[in-house]
Amino acid sequence: MPVLFENVTVVSAVSNDIHRTDETGIRNDGEMGVIRDAFVLVEGEKISYIGKEQPRDFSGERIDGRRKVLMPGLINAHTHLPMTAFRGFADDYDLQTWLYSYIFPAEDKLTAGSAAVFTDLAIAEMIASGTTSLTDMYFFSDTIAERVAESGIKANISRAVTFFDEDYDFHSDNRAGELVRLVEEWHGFDHGRIRIEASIHAEYTSNPKVWTAVSDYAASKGLRMQVHLSETRSEHERCIEKYGMTPAAVLARYGVFDVPASAAHCVWVDQNDIEILAQKCVSVVHNPVSNMKLASGIAPVTDMLTAGVNVALGTDGVSSNNSFDMFEEIKMASLAAKVRSLDPTAVKASQALIMATSGGAAAQGRRGECGMIREGMDADLILIDFDRPHLIPAHDIVSNLVYSARGSDVVMNMVRGRIIYKEGEFLTIDLEKVKREAEKAAGIFR
Amino acid sequence: MPVLFENVTVVSAVSNDIHRTDETGIRNDGEMGVIRDAFVLVEGEKISYIGKEQPRDFSGERIDGRRKVLMPGLINAHTHLPMTAFRGFADDYDLQTWLYSYIFPAEDKLTAGSAAVFTDLAIAEMIASGTTSLTDMYFFSDTIAERVAESGIKANISRAVTFFDEDYDFHSDNRAGELVRLVEEWHGFDHGRIRIEASIHAEYTSNPKVWTAVSDYAASKGLRMQVHLSETRSEHERCIEKYGMTPAAVLARYGVFDVPASAAHCVWVDQNDIEILAQKCVSVVHNPVSNMKLASGIAPVTDMLTAGVNVALGTDGVSSNNSFDMFEEIKMASLAAKVRSLDPTAVKASQALIMATSGGAAAQGRRGECGMIREGMDADLILIDFDRPHLIPAHDIVSNLVYSARGSDVVMNMVRGRIIYKEGEFLTIDLEKVKREAEKAAGIFR
Repeated sequence: MPVLFENVTVVSAVSNDIHRTDETGIRNDGEMGVIRDAFVLVEGEKISYIGKEQPRDFSGERIDGRRKVLMPGLINAHTHLPMTAFRGFADDYDLQTWLYSYIFPAEDKLTAGSAAVFTDLAIAEMIASGTTSLTDMYFFSDTIAERVAESGIKANISRAVTFFDEDYDFHSDNRAGELVRLVEEWHGFDHGRIRIEASIHAEYTSNPKVWTAVSDYAASKGLRMQVHLSETRSEHERCIEKYGMTPAAVLARYGVFDVPASAAHCVWVDQNDIEILAQKCVSVVHNPVSNMKLASGIAPVTDMLTAGVNVALGTDGVSSNNSFDMFEEIKMASLAAKVRSLDPTAVKASQALIMATSGGAAAQGRRGECGMIREGMDADLILIDFDRPHLIPAHDIVSNLVYSARGSDVVMNMVRGRIIYKEGEFLTIDLEKVKREAEKAAGIFR
Repeated sequence: MPVLFENVTVVSAVSNDIHRTDETGIRNDGEMGVIRDAFVLVEGEKISYIGKEQPRDFSGERIDGRRKVLMPGLINAHTHLPMTAFRGFADDYDLQTWLYSYIFPAEDKLTAGSAAVFTDLAIAEMIASGTTSLTDMYFFSDTIAERVAESGIKANISRAVTFFDEDYDFHSDNRAGELVRLVEEWHGFDHGRIRIEASIHAEYTSNPKVWTAVSDYAASKGLRMQVHLSETRSEHERCIEKYGMTPAAVLARYGVFDVPASAAHCVWVDQNDIEILAQKCVSVVHNPVSNMKLASGIAPVTDMLTAGVNVALGTDGVSSNNSFDMFEEIKMASLAAKVRSLDPTAVKASQALIMATSGGAAAQGRRGECGMIREGMDADLILIDFDRPHLIPAHDIVSNLVYSARGSDVVMNMVRGRIIYKEGEFLTIDLEKVKREAEKAAGIFR
């Protein structure tokens, strides 16, 4: 059934024009457009009309948009869904204690069954707080794909390859095997609602043979690539000791960035690394909350934008966040950049919002498909209730979205024209069941 | 009517023992206590019982506490309520442009009428997000006191004194006159629900004659003192140029901290300043979101705690935040400390929560009265709904409160035994009226 948003305030990036000469670039220095008292028509999976005139002879579902903002759904461009099992499980420890004493032993206890439950829980939280598309890197990836398929959300999913032995054979590696099966079974599902990506977990968890093999495979299948890059200072410095090059430089050298790629974190990249990322059209996924919570640092996002790098936003897993609320991430992207440079004009509100929408779409290879409100694009839309005390007055709608709104202000989530969440109701997830199963499943980690 | 919270999870600081030899100190290195499946009885204005046994023969209002957390109401220890008029009014500018081109001219247009409306709006947002007590520093202070009185919230209110002329006479100064009238009319209102504090706006907006006169007046009336201290680097460095001393040192020299005091911001204080603050038992009010948004920096909170300084939390005005959600401030207090020191163990969850509760009570001179759940204390309590996807699983209740909860998870706010907010309903504020009046009043600033 067609849906018509009536008398709504529309907020969206106004352009995703190519900033550089590549196909992945996007203008992060762009402006957000605001149209008040607009009508937005959704027919099938697409936005078919945006304008100040009410469409004639409409029959379908009408949604009152007064005192509400309609914006592109948020894109969480880096996470690990099943790690929702470990929310609040081991906070305030140093990274080594956190990983080796808590997270790794707990991950050993995860099963496909519990991974499914925590993925459902994660998706429920994401949907309720305005995310319409996500990028995942983990294991149990077939389970994740199944749950994503069921939920109606959009996702790019990868099975991360880690391999420490020097002697690597792609065809006999179990992890690579899972990736290959994932591609066969899920890549392009529901005409592209799910896409599979290749993934090299990180420089420090694999080696040049792995990098070449996985990149060759990705190129042969036309897949995008995900990596973790220079998240911590020690990881960055050890790579320089080992290879005489930074992680960005050494991965580029072995062809990893000859495939369209996104690189998560990039906290410790230097100016030369930023040039490499720009030249290779790698999207950076900035995870400011996780980077602060784990005390990794603050990524030099302003320098990346200046160099023409596309920057998207991610929450990382909630074990290090501990929330999927992208509104928090958006605000933090702005605040972290300001305090890092002691410049209050760094990462303005509109730039932070672009990172979470059209910047995320570009990082997913979905530029042209979503991340903006534009006729012909997928109707991945969220509606924000602006009639709440903390969103009044609204001198500047974009400022209020970035600095004052919370995920709990989202009152509707639509993916490809299908409403999957409305005023507290989940239309694709049995939330009560998921919550009780998650509580039960969480018991095994203690 | 007595109120009984049944089968609730209670979270509170377990001690407000004196850390130093003074009366204002509090152990910020303390632990939060968690009691599951507890019963908490409120009779009159006080907490009269906390225990695992259900009180017999209870008659009154029963509140089901299953899957809910009862904690002390949050204390917002530094704000400027009427500045809610300027939410989103001028973001992403440098400080001078923000102040001189936008905020100061807009403040000139504020009237007592519009200040009242925006104070109501501010209090509504605060109540709905779990604040039960606030500390304000602004003008229109009598209007603020009236609105606070009406709303049921608790507040310490001051009229900030600024005076640039060298020749200062307390008795002929209009601002000081407003402070004196405020003390006469409002100090101790409703047996101490409202307290008036003296205030020297900041070192750079006044001079030694002002500091001595206002401090003498505060001492004579038994008032506490509020100041802004070393918020920005330039303010801190100019003071050293002018007086050969830091702001903390020069204010201490002129007796400002011989009155029980709280100092907001303290971003640029050095180790000697921290020693002064500790020795003089000055509470620091940390405003991490505002300090990041204005790119002032991150205060050295870990060093303050180590030195035995009591640290409270504040949002500052929402024109530089742009939210009164103290849960955001709590999370940011932890994250900012971690990234500042690159130490993930800095400001643990329990420490951040103590800052917002018992630390805030100490900063208000209300230690022993509120900030904890303890028999005999004021029933300033909030109830958090933990049956939401983003708060499951709850491996650690305190971690979830700090890193995952949002102000919108608050389902009840009680001040001195009186419920003033419950499940979206405001019991002391006509929210619809306030919202419409605020929107209308906001028009004059554009």
